[in-house]
Amino acid sequence: MHFTSERLLEDGVLEREFLLGEIPGTLWTPPSAPAPLVLMAHNNGLPKADPRLVARARYTAARGYTVATIDAAGCGDRPRSAAAERARADLRRAMRAGEPVDEIFESLIGPLVDNAVPEWRTTLDALLELPGIGGPVGYSGGWTALGIRLAVAEPRIAAAGFFAGGYVPRAQREEARQVTVPLLFLLQWDDEGNPRQRALDLFDAFGSEQKTLHANLGGHTGTPWFELEDGCRFFDRHLK
Amino acid sequence: MHFTSERLLEDGVLEREFLLGEIPGTLWTPPSAPAPLVLMAHNNGLPKADPRLVARARYTAARGYTVATIDAAGCGDRPRSAAAERARADLRRAMRAGEPVDEIFESLIGPLVDNAVPEWRTTLDALLELPGIGGPVGYSGGWTALGIRLAVAEPRIAAAGFFAGGYVPRAQREEARQVTVPLLFLLQWDDEGNPRQRALDLFDAFGSEQKTLHANLGGHTGTPWFELEDGCRFFDRHLK
Repeated sequence: MHFTSERLLEDGVLEREFLLGEIPGTLWTPPSAPAPLVLMAHNNGLPKADPRLVARARYTAARGYTVATIDAAGCGDRPRSAAAERARADLRRAMRAGEPVDEIFESLIGPLVDNAVPEWRTTLDALLELPGIGGPVGYSGGWTALGIRLAVAEPRIAAAGFFAGGYVPRAQREEARQVTVPLLFLLQWDDEGNPRQRALDLFDAFGSEQKTLHANLGGHTGTPWFELEDGCRFFDRHLK
Repeated sequence: MHFTSERLLEDGVLEREFLLGEIPGTLWTPPSAPAPLVLMAHNNGLPKADPRLVARARYTAARGYTVATIDAAGCGDRPRSAAAERARADLRRAMRAGEPVDEIFESLIGPLVDNAVPEWRTTLDALLELPGIGGPVGYSGGWTALGIRLAVAEPRIAAAGFFAGGYVPRAQREEARQVTVPLLFLLQWDDEGNPRQRALDLFDAFGSEQKTLHANLGGHTGTPWFELEDGCRFFDRHLK
C-alpha cells in the first residue's frame, strides 16, 4: 500500500489517497487511534470521490472510525471497460424508460461483485497491517450486493450497514440468508430505482438474529442526515 | 389536578401519582426544567403501572422530558366495565385461537379511543398549567389508534412515536392520512399480534412529510433497548 497524497481536515481527520497494486483507494483516519475499521462502498459505478460517499466517510471518521474505500474495476480513477460502459448505459436507459432491468442488471452487477470481492479482501489485508487499526471490521455501503458477498465470505466483517437493496443479483439474494452478522438495513420508502417490496423481501431473507430496518419517506437521494448518526451508533454497539 | 403520592428516583426524576377528577395518572418530571412534555399511552387495557410503560417513562424523563400517563376508563386503577371485560376476554380468546378479530377489535377499541381522547386533552390542559413544562408536546405510545386520533385532533401535539399498529380501528386507519406531524413508527417484524403488512400499510398511509420506520426482528415484546434511546433522539430533534 502506497500513499500518494494526504490532507488534514479541520476536525483532525487525516484523508489519504493510496494505491494498492492497480487499486486506487482513500483512507480516512480519526485523531483517536486505535480505531475500528469501516469499509465503505458505493454502488453502480460511482467513484470513490463521489461527494455523498466522501461526506459519509468524513463524518464516520470524525466519529472515531478508520474508513476506507476503493474504486471498483472500470470506475472512478480506473481504466474504463467498453463492455461495462455499454451495460451501464443500457441499464440507465431501461430504468428511465421503465423497462424491466433484471437481465441487464444481472449481466452488469453480477461480474462486478465477483471481481470486487477479492480486491476488497486484498485491501482489508493491507489495511489491517497498518498501525492504529484495531478490533472488528464493519461494512457500510450503498453497494448491498457486495456487502452481502463480503459478509458471507469474510469472517473479519462483524457488522454491516446496507442501503437500498431493491436490485441485488440473484446470487446475492440467495446468499442473504447466510448473512448472520448484526445488520442495519436502510431504505428510502419511495426510492425510484429500488422497488420497495423487493427491498423488504431482502431484509426478511437475511439470516441475522439482530437486524434492524430504517425506512424514511422520499426518493433515493433523500435519506435524512440523522441516519448517518444512527449508522455510527449502530457501529458503536457492535465494533467498539 | 391533585397529587396523591410522590417518590424521588435515583437519577433525580420525580415520580408523582395524581388524580384529575376521576382520572388517575402518573407524572414523571426530570431534574432539569422547563422540559418538553411527552404523553405516553399503553394499548389494550394495560394499566399505567405496567412495568414496560414505567421503564420507558422513567428513561424518557431521565433524558430530560416531563412524561405523563393516565389509566383509560375500565383499566388499571379505574372501575371495570363488565362489557369491556367480556370484549377483552373474547379478543384474547380469538387471537389465541387464530380466529379473525377485526369485529371484536372494532367494538372494543373503537369506543375506547373515542372515550380516551377527551380525557387525554383534559389532562393535557391541566399539565400545561403546571410550572416547568414548556414547548411543544410529543406523543409516545403503544396505543397507536389513540395517538392517531390525538395527533389529528390536538394541535399542541408536535411529534409522535407509534408502536405496532397492525390492529387499528377503521376510523383511525382512515384518519392516518390526516396526521402530518413528524413520526417515528416502530414495529416488531414478527409481532404475533400485529400483522406486518397491515402495519406497513399504516406507515404508508400517514400524511406526514417526515416519517421514519424502525423495524426489528422478533416478537411483540422483543423491541431492543436501543429503540428507547432512538425514541428520545427523535423527540430531541422535534421538541427541543
